[in-house]
Amino acid sequence: MAQRFYDTRTAQIRDFEPLVPGEASVYYCGATVQGMPHVGHVRSAIVFDILIRWLEATGLRVTSVRNVTDIDDKILDRSADSHEADFEASDLYPAREPWWALAYRFEKAFDAAYLALGVRRPTYEPRATGHVPEMFALIERLMERGHAYPAQDGSGDVYFDVRSWERYGELTRQRVEDMQDAPDADPRGKRDPRDFALWKGAKPGEPATAVWESPWGAGRPGWHLECSAMSTKYLGAEFDIHGGGLDLRFPHHENELAQSAAAGDGFARFWLHNGLVTYGGEKMSKSVGNTISPEEMLGMARPTAVRYFLGQAHYRSQLDYRPGALDEAEAAVERIEGFTARADKDWATADRIRDALAAAGVVVEDGADGATWRLAD
Amino acid sequence: MAQRFYDTRTAQIRDFEPLVPGEASVYYCGATVQGMPHVGHVRSAIVFDILIRWLEATGLRVTSVRNVTDIDDKILDRSADSHEADFEASDLYPAREPWWALAYRFEKAFDAAYLALGVRRPTYEPRATGHVPEMFALIERLMERGHAYPAQDGSGDVYFDVRSWERYGELTRQRVEDMQDAPDADPRGKRDPRDFALWKGAKPGEPATAVWESPWGAGRPGWHLECSAMSTKYLGAEFDIHGGGLDLRFPHHENELAQSAAAGDGFARFWLHNGLVTYGGEKMSKSVGNTISPEEMLGMARPTAVRYFLGQAHYRSQLDYRPGALDEAEAAVERIEGFTARADKDWATADRIRDALAAAGVVVEDGADGATWRLAD
Repeated sequence: MAQRFYDTRTAQIRDFEPLVPGEASVYYCGATVQGMPHVGHVRSAIVFDILIRWLEATGLRVTSVRNVTDIDDKILDRSADSHEADFEASDLYPAREPWWALAYRFEKAFDAAYLALGVRRPTYEPRATGHVPEMFALIERLMERGHAYPAQDGSGDVYFDVRSWERYGELTRQRVEDMQDAPDADPRGKRDPRDFALWKGAKPGEPATAVWESPWGAGRPGWHLECSAMSTKYLGAEFDIHGGGLDLRFPHHENELAQSAAAGDGFARFWLHNGLVTYGGEKMSKSVGNTISPEEMLGMARPTAVRYFLGQAHYRSQLDYRPGALDEAEAAVERIEGFTARADKDWATADRIRDALAAAGVVVEDGADGATWRLAD
Repeated sequence: MAQRFYDTRTAQIRDFEPLVPGEASVYYCGATVQGMPHVGHVRSAIVFDILIRWLEATGLRVTSVRNVTDIDDKILDRSADSHEADFEASDLYPAREPWWALAYRFEKAFDAAYLALGVRRPTYEPRATGHVPEMFALIERLMERGHAYPAQDGSGDVYFDVRSWERYGELTRQRVEDMQDAPDADPRGKRDPRDFALWKGAKPGEPATAVWESPWGAGRPGWHLECSAMSTKYLGAEFDIHGGGLDLRFPHHENELAQSAAAGDGFARFWLHNGLVTYGGEKMSKSVGNTISPEEMLGMARPTAVRYFLGQAHYRSQLDYRPGALDEAEAAVERIEGFTARADKDWATADRIRDALAAAGVVVEDGADGATWRLAD
């Protein structure tokens, strides 16, 4: 029986037939490494870890890619704010912690959190900044097809022209008219406020290490473009599954799909989105104070219980955390461990009986009925 | 008193004055991730870990960069050889394990070995494939200055012109005439057999993911160029210390220095090279069978004893492994641990005496002589 998945784009549960028989290709959005992992990040990783293990258990060879987005406004801002009283800024080190060092530090914190929770490493984990030439190529294809244009004010930005692509909105079933404006850049030289940045022209004061020369001037990649460039480089122009948290559907995944489809790529055949984690039924929020981090969870229960808690709900459901939830998960894990320990013991007992019978000349064979007994020759 | 280091380039022990007061910038060559870590790799990492800790202990703020070279001939060859009988190769997956997946797997194996041996992570760990635009910029600067040229046979290679750079050979004090030919490419269209590749034109059959479009045709970076591009991007055109194993002096570091200096960069002010690890006085070699891996060492002794063994010799000395060496290291570590345990106990005893005296109205103060006793007021 074929595996069936709910696909966000078609809003249907569809049979999963991999593009290449015997293989499955999965891209799921990893972290923008601007801070420590949230519970939502690790739930998503656990969900797709379970999916990949399941696909493998059905006999498929899975190639999985999870990105590290190591440059964005917040990473640059957080680095720029990391001054020290006793530290004299220079051209090379305008901040105490350069953006690339900050991104690397958080990349490793995510790596540690994933491993602590039993999330296997993907086949590859590309960094966004490592794929600038691939992004140029994608922008060029979009320009040739009339779906991208340089900002009309000389800012160096390059935008995706949402009005030029009739399918824009297909992932989240929205009409362009009803969409919110793209917040990723000042509306400098945009044709439509919903046009989103493929390339962001350099602004004064940005560190030289965060600026690449492009055919459209110096700047850095747009946040959405990176995933399109990385997924198709490693998985091909068309691949099986694109995953991520529900909050990434719009604008991130809508824009990814638009970029890649408008450039002529088949892109993802299934879009899978996992539900979010709430606290006592409400959105976690630092200002409300109702947050809990993976680190705090790992201080309260064994990793296996934390993984059980985060993996227990159906992946599309909202998962609600409330105090005591990890104790319940711990108790559930203990029940499972008790069961497997008893089963192990029963197997050991069965082995001893088998050995005793064999010594007595009776051989137990595993027959079609699971237990065939016969006297040894 | 200034720190003094032996600098390979000048062949002198020189006072170390950092370029930026209060800071130190260190680049040391990490792994070409084509296999599991050797003992030589981890000795080098321990040596530079100790150096960085020392520099920090003297009050400097250290920015350290260690590269991951994630593309080269061996990585591609090893990937291409990873066919499976039941696996049908395709354009996208010509091999069972794509080169980028293989490189990532070994990158993580190095990461684990470094961490197991107490080597702290550098400030940043760039991947070579992530710096192709920076390499283009460097090649362009070399061409403008007349030190690089495209191969004269249309192969797409770009070479460094060793005859054009009078200082070539300065690191290892060799005359060009006495040097060996550059083995990094067929001598297709070279002006001199010692010219080395900055860019390697794509060859038929190489996977599409390993090919980048460049101003000189499709191809991939030369092995030496990567370190010049990465070190100067993060540490600046001139930085304090470049480190690596003794075996990297020629051709790797000689070529790095030539590229960067010929392009106009000050590059490294000190070159530090650590000695190699031998086995019973001989070069380790798989064909002789006299090898031992970090993994095997960690199976024979505690990580702290392995680190002690690999860190005990002067960093420039050859370090010889022979059976029993790790037992001796373990015994040495136990002596140190015994000493610190006794010292801890003595401090605890001193604290108890101090408390008893205080209760009796005698206060012990730390005076200029280290122990001043007076009656409490």
